Amino acid sequence: MEITVGVTGMTCEHCVNAVKEELMKVEDVQNVEVELREGLPSPVIITSSRELAPLEIESAVDEAGYVVV
Amino acid sequence: MEITVGVTGMTCEHCVNAVKEELMKVEDVQNVEVELREGLPSPVIITSSRELAPLEIESAVDEAGYVVV
Repeated sequence: MEITVGVTGMTCEHCVNAVKEELMKVEDVQNVEVELREGLPSPVIITSSRELAPLEIESAVDEAGYVVV
Repeated sequence: MEITVGVTGMTCEHCVNAVKEELMKVEDVQNVEVELREGLPSPVIITSSRELAPLEIESAVDEAGYVVV
């Protein structure tokens, strides 16, 4: 299944990779795509084999240093 | 001795760290400080025990994915 969340604070591909890396560590996450929008929340599309709890996503994004909105 | 160059394209601390890392690999470089200015060239202050060739600095910054102006 697929869920899209908005993440603020990413400004470059380094930021994108940091968020992707942390989200890919969440169990059963299969793919993460980011559409970087500087100065705006960027859509982050997460594909997983089970429904993810919002806290799992928020924690991973927080670990990378960014915020789910 | 100390030299300050302007570097464009850095938007966040990941970028700053990438530039610092590459410049610290240049022989005889002792310290690198970056004053991040988004959307403008950012001053990069390089301290070294010898005079650095411009090409050494440009190559290291290029290696990190940014440009000396």
